[in-house]
Amino acid sequence: MNSIRNSQSEIRNSDLPIGIFDSGVGGLTVYRALHEHLPNERFVYLGDTARVPYGTKSLATVERYAVENAQFLAAHGIKLLVVACNTASALALPAIRQALNIDVVGVIGPGARAAVAGSSGKRIGVIATESTVHSGAYTKAIGKADPNASVIERACPLFVPLAEEGWANEEVARTVAETYLKDLRSSIDTLVLGCTHYPILKRVIQQTVGPQVKLIDSGEATGREVKSLLEEKDLARDAPETSARERQLCDDLDHFYVTDAAERFARVAERFLGSKPARLEAVEVWGHDELRTH
Amino acid sequence: MNSIRNSQSEIRNSDLPIGIFDSGVGGLTVYRALHEHLPNERFVYLGDTARVPYGTKSLATVERYAVENAQFLAAHGIKLLVVACNTASALALPAIRQALNIDVVGVIGPGARAAVAGSSGKRIGVIATESTVHSGAYTKAIGKADPNASVIERACPLFVPLAEEGWANEEVARTVAETYLKDLRSSIDTLVLGCTHYPILKRVIQQTVGPQVKLIDSGEATGREVKSLLEEKDLARDAPETSARERQLCDDLDHFYVTDAAERFARVAERFLGSKPARLEAVEVWGHDELRTH
Repeated sequence: MNSIRNSQSEIRNSDLPIGIFDSGVGGLTVYRALHEHLPNERFVYLGDTARVPYGTKSLATVERYAVENAQFLAAHGIKLLVVACNTASALALPAIRQALNIDVVGVIGPGARAAVAGSSGKRIGVIATESTVHSGAYTKAIGKADPNASVIERACPLFVPLAEEGWANEEVARTVAETYLKDLRSSIDTLVLGCTHYPILKRVIQQTVGPQVKLIDSGEATGREVKSLLEEKDLARDAPETSARERQLCDDLDHFYVTDAAERFARVAERFLGSKPARLEAVEVWGHDELRTH
Repeated sequence: MNSIRNSQSEIRNSDLPIGIFDSGVGGLTVYRALHEHLPNERFVYLGDTARVPYGTKSLATVERYAVENAQFLAAHGIKLLVVACNTASALALPAIRQALNIDVVGVIGPGARAAVAGSSGKRIGVIATESTVHSGAYTKAIGKADPNASVIERACPLFVPLAEEGWANEEVARTVAETYLKDLRSSIDTLVLGCTHYPILKRVIQQTVGPQVKLIDSGEATGREVKSLLEEKDLARDAPETSARERQLCDDLDHFYVTDAAERFARVAERFLGSKPARLEAVEVWGHDELRTH
């Protein structure tokens, strides 16, 4: 640990990339948002595809996985870490912050603040994974931003495989969205997309809740907050080589790691972003998970 | 390893329970089938809920997880191991058999043999996870049982969360089934449910493919084959205490372990079986998955 901390302090500067980790492929929507807001920055993305999903796992397990992911990225030299996974942001931010000595930004806080800022009547819905909902992290963060806001949280687990199947515009997406969301329509004026996969289904979600409900993409909100933070801390990158050419999503200035099944990741990445990562590397999950009883 | 092998050989006898492992909660449908066919037997079930699902993971990862699960159960003293997870059966049976010195039964072989035996025209469909389909294990096993049978395999990833949500009888289940299966209707006479979750959706699947298509539940088929195997090897259990009372699913003669989120497991178990396990214990995933680059 000390060696990571030391090397971090010594080489900490604006030229380092921004680290992003997610439980899998969903965090690519957050990567896309960051990329749009910060075209001069380079990114290192880790998708923990060997242990995805986090959304049905316990606090202790999510914490352990999240800290390992964070340490992996920190060891590669990053100036800031974005926890793209809502579940990891909800459950593991304190543990991650304790393990690293760089700024760590989750998606819950930015999403909650954007919801409060954008909501006319402060009746806010949040859709997320089971574990995120169970944690109540969005309700707490929204309450911190505005104690008078009312919050309804709801788990929508089928949205993840729907997005990964590429069925965002199929009839089945409409039926699933209707089943999860129809009774929310009249109770909220703002809806937070509290899982990285949900922006892929933005259109059908908007159609289901109606045009009067404002959708908040936590990844988008995080992109804006990270931009401000970098400027404030004088960590934004001058990028002579990137300004000389048009940055593209997934181009060779960004580096992607997955813990398993790189081929599947590339396939879904293409579905989500329109292109496959130019630099995609599978990393080994090291050590062994041995099982024991108490 | 040696200590496990030795203790296994010494205490191997008909009184030991049967071990069952699955990537999570889905294997409970296989447990139910075994329980029905073998009311005198006791079972030890391990659901690897910390690392579920296996169906989108790579061969190397599924092999490692499966062997660890198998060794955990073997160390508890079992007379036979049933690999309830189709993905683990498809990818990891050789590795598991190499690691244990007891009989290991997967669900693919029994499912394939039952499909061939039950199919009138030998036009067999298989629905399963991505990894199971990708492995081609069902096609190989069906070809071994009948080289003239034709096989169509298809991944149906949304069926898993549909079953876990308890939406088996909702409109959305019909739409999803229609999307996956409508073009199979006229091409097959038999359909193998090649994922442990799918029997929960049996009714809507049958309605979608039509009454002329025979459904094969691999778990059911495995129950029958395990019964024969135990009789053949003289390993069936005389059970004075169980014959004195009616065995119930999930009663205290069976022991359930999960690697994470026991509460969620109990909730879905109740949805699948109508009752929660009387003896359910969370076991720790030991050691650490550290990430490293090559």
